[in-house]
Amino acid sequence: MSADPVETNPDHYSVVFENDDVRVLRYADVPGHRSTPHDHPDSVMITLSGFRRRLHAGGTSRDVELPPGAAMWLPAQHHAGENIGDTETHVVFVELKRPGGPAGPSRAVGPA
Amino acid sequence: MSADPVETNPDHYSVVFENDDVRVLRYADVPGHRSTPHDHPDSVMITLSGFRRRLHAGGTSRDVELPPGAAMWLPAQHHAGENIGDTETHVVFVELKRPGGPAGPSRAVGPA
Repeated sequence: MSADPVETNPDHYSVVFENDDVRVLRYADVPGHRSTPHDHPDSVMITLSGFRRRLHAGGTSRDVELPPGAAMWLPAQHHAGENIGDTETHVVFVELKRPGGPAGPSRAVGPA
Repeated sequence: MSADPVETNPDHYSVVFENDDVRVLRYADVPGHRSTPHDHPDSVMITLSGFRRRLHAGGTSRDVELPPGAAMWLPAQHHAGENIGDTETHVVFVELKRPGGPAGPSRAVGPA
């Protein structure tokens, strides 16, 4: 069962646009916020703000710090994100749609 | 013959990363700059800065004004871009790779 972030975290994820190839999401939160666990398909993540975040998945966590304007590959994964910095987080996700449906989640957490 | 912007405008386009699914480009210029004509495959364009640009294609032009943080579909096209604003332009392009190779360019100019 997929946990679509637009459904699990509707106050923070919104659909910017969608077509047959991609769905583009906008994400925003404030320091201290922790999201409900959710799924990402293979995506490109573009940071509009810098951030410091803790990604929780499968009982482990990984801290990620990025500057504004970074573009990174986010392999399909299930996680919850926590804003551990002192600034708002603003991110765009370009989710890739697969002709054969979504690829299975990898074991990776966070951007590649 | 494809006019890859990384080759036609190497001082302004650079590859951020590339895998089997996407190639991600970063673009930057200054007011008054006009790019050499080049091709884009179907892409998602994310503005890191606001901008005012004039897109030239096939003897016509279209002016586009966007705020920072916009994410838009850019259908495959051949064009040249001109910075007609008074600020630097900073943009990320997420180019989609097709299993069967690139789709033919549409007749559209600029973001959808």
